[in-house]
Amino acid sequence: MSAGVAVKRPKTMPSEAGDRVDWKKRKAELKEANKQKKEAKLIKQLEKQKRQEATEREKLEQGQNKKGRAYTVSVALPGSVLDNAQSTELRTYLAGQIARACVVFCVDEIVVFDEQGEDVKSVEGEFKGVGKKGHACIQLARILQYLECPQYLRKWFFPKHQDLQYAGLLNPLDSPHHMRIDDESEYREGIVLDRPTKQGKGSLVNCGMRKDVRIDKQLQSGLRVTVQLNQRQNQVCVCVCVCVYYLFKIFLLRKIFVHQPCVCVCPSSSESKVCKGVVVAPHMPRTEGGLYWGYSVRLASCLSAVFTESPYKEGYDLTIGTSERGSNMDQTTLSPFKHLLVVFGGLQGLEASVDTDQNLDVTDPRVLFDLYLNTCPGQGSRTIRTEEAILVSMAGLRPKITAAFSDISNGLLKS
Amino acid sequence: MSAGVAVKRPKTMPSEAGDRVDWKKRKAELKEANKQKKEAKLIKQLEKQKRQEATEREKLEQGQNKKGRAYTVSVALPGSVLDNAQSTELRTYLAGQIARACVVFCVDEIVVFDEQGEDVKSVEGEFKGVGKKGHACIQLARILQYLECPQYLRKWFFPKHQDLQYAGLLNPLDSPHHMRIDDESEYREGIVLDRPTKQGKGSLVNCGMRKDVRIDKQLQSGLRVTVQLNQRQNQVCVCVCVCVYYLFKIFLLRKIFVHQPCVCVCPSSSESKVCKGVVVAPHMPRTEGGLYWGYSVRLASCLSAVFTESPYKEGYDLTIGTSERGSNMDQTTLSPFKHLLVVFGGLQGLEASVDTDQNLDVTDPRVLFDLYLNTCPGQGSRTIRTEEAILVSMAGLRPKITAAFSDISNGLLKS
Repeated sequence: MSAGVAVKRPKTMPSEAGDRVDWKKRKAELKEANKQKKEAKLIKQLEKQKRQEATEREKLEQGQNKKGRAYTVSVALPGSVLDNAQSTELRTYLAGQIARACVVFCVDEIVVFDEQGEDVKSVEGEFKGVGKKGHACIQLARILQYLECPQYLRKWFFPKHQDLQYAGLLNPLDSPHHMRIDDESEYREGIVLDRPTKQGKGSLVNCGMRKDVRIDKQLQSGLRVTVQLNQRQNQVCVCVCVCVYYLFKIFLLRKIFVHQPCVCVCPSSSESKVCKGVVVAPHMPRTEGGLYWGYSVRLASCLSAVFTESPYKEGYDLTIGTSERGSNMDQTTLSPFKHLLVVFGGLQGLEASVDTDQNLDVTDPRVLFDLYLNTCPGQGSRTIRTEEAILVSMAGLRPKITAAFSDISNGLLKS
Repeated sequence: MSAGVAVKRPKTMPSEAGDRVDWKKRKAELKEANKQKKEAKLIKQLEKQKRQEATEREKLEQGQNKKGRAYTVSVALPGSVLDNAQSTELRTYLAGQIARACVVFCVDEIVVFDEQGEDVKSVEGEFKGVGKKGHACIQLARILQYLECPQYLRKWFFPKHQDLQYAGLLNPLDSPHHMRIDDESEYREGIVLDRPTKQGKGSLVNCGMRKDVRIDKQLQSGLRVTVQLNQRQNQVCVCVCVCVYYLFKIFLLRKIFVHQPCVCVCPSSSESKVCKGVVVAPHMPRTEGGLYWGYSVRLASCLSAVFTESPYKEGYDLTIGTSERGSNMDQTTLSPFKHLLVVFGGLQGLEASVDTDQNLDVTDPRVLFDLYLNTCPGQGSRTIRTEEAILVSMAGLRPKITAAFSDISNGLLKS
């Protein structure tokens, strides 16, 4: 009997002793449990899939953001605006106001045109020729370039010049490419140094860091270059030091410290004498890194040269003229563009600039532009100075530009 | 037979001789013609009605426009922004930039608050006390008031003062109430003159015109007043002279001359020695005439006093704080308001102003405002100076304010 009882005993203990085991129920329960397990597994798989999809979408979005800004914004204004200042100091200060206004709104190119038809030759880039004394266009261009240049490069590119006599009064631009010595960044502006380099090794560049940067190419000394720093390689030794340093601090003092670069503290980080980097096109920080990287300066001999001498192969595909006589900007929407040009007039407005330009047959400036806008309807002053007009107009255009491109990216994500 | 033929001859000549007239057709044709005439008349009547309606609507709209602006806009900023200037000349110039920025956007009140907690007493209106030398709040307020005052009144209200030493560098505001001697306007700012007046006659006021203005009241001399000129009465004699003068010119020289005021040419126009006008409240040019009429200046001893010492009985019903840490202004719409206050921070932002204010328990400035906005998302400079922020923020808010009130007037027209 005991053997029979033993045979009948279920392999697992029943919940209530003495009850007879209902095998059918038991099987159904097991089946149900298995089903639930499978379902849970499926749900987990689905959730994982969802998470993966979300991560991918995030990456895609980040990628799109990281891809940076493909379009450019140019601003053109007559150099004669400087003549609207009441002293030599204020002449300099006004140029600084223009530079800052453009930087605040991430302008990529400033074109200074001659509305008095004095036929200045283009002196883009370097200012080796001195230019006529007191010439507004050249002086404005020079101060704009001076301000755009990172502070640590100015001693090389801007020797003493009377146009820069009051440069001490200028407010700094404080733009992302004006970095302090210990700032970390993927990109930096630098100057190729005049140092002997071995064959197969690239030139040395001063990027305003504690160490010079060895680039991938041999370039002529004195060139201004945009360098993409090999951040991983450059950081390896620093990271190790930081870790050791922090572990030490944490274990000894049982406190967690705010992260601070320990370049000065940690002697071993100065072991490698140079950092490594590659020279890239100046537009890379904008198009790849999504950073604002300052502006270029161009001189134009007349208003029409602003359009015809565009540095972009395709020219400007959206041109806006600003005038009190333009149409109300509130009713305007912008469509996406590659290269936007916003043109400002001087004391006498764009009408005067059109009049003095011998290449232009028109008298009404609105025919020159895709849009001719009044960017400050209902203004409380009879006049708006050009340095004010840049801030006012760009502040008005900014949300319209954002809207033009956010519509596109929304469209892309949906499709 | 001929008589019979004669009877049968239609009263009007048939188009084709010899054809028998189809009277039924003829009648139908006449009926049709009458119908068309009636319809044309009806259409004309309808068109007339439409035209009348359109004219009435236009008048209504004009009336609404003429009623002017009921709302006010105030701007508050710390006086310490002046300390952000690099020379005494630039300190003055910066104050001028702030004044112009506010005028361009028709700001009605500028509040200068002390963010350093030096507990300045309110010195609104007249500056008889000199104030601590180099005190930023007082100096800023003084320069703002100086600039707001029409040029022809400055010699009375602004005696020589060291704060105004560099006033010559200031750019003029060029606002509608800064009128030239021969400008015609319904309203003018003036000063009550210290001249004996007969009983029953009002005081004489200098409004910067060729003649003084006799007002309806006797007021204390030295007061600044807003005068509504009795334009019709004042123009009668001038008009007559102009007519005689032009008739003379036209008949003698057979030429039509461009209209020029002939006050100097025509001796009889100087016969009446004074113009006539009535003293009105300073808000009248804005609320009735729809004109921008300058700003008032108020000193506040701390940030909280900006809110609590409002000159408007009901206080400010919409307050906006501006900060890089605010929410993106692009996603914001404004609802209609009576008194808008826009507050700007100094070098250290509004956070610093909140910290030093002993009346405020909060640390996060956003709780003080209805809206806490970043008015320049994606800025290309790490910092935006307060004088730039005013232009940028007000340029961003302007279309939103317009939209808030245009929705109302559209609603009114529809209802």
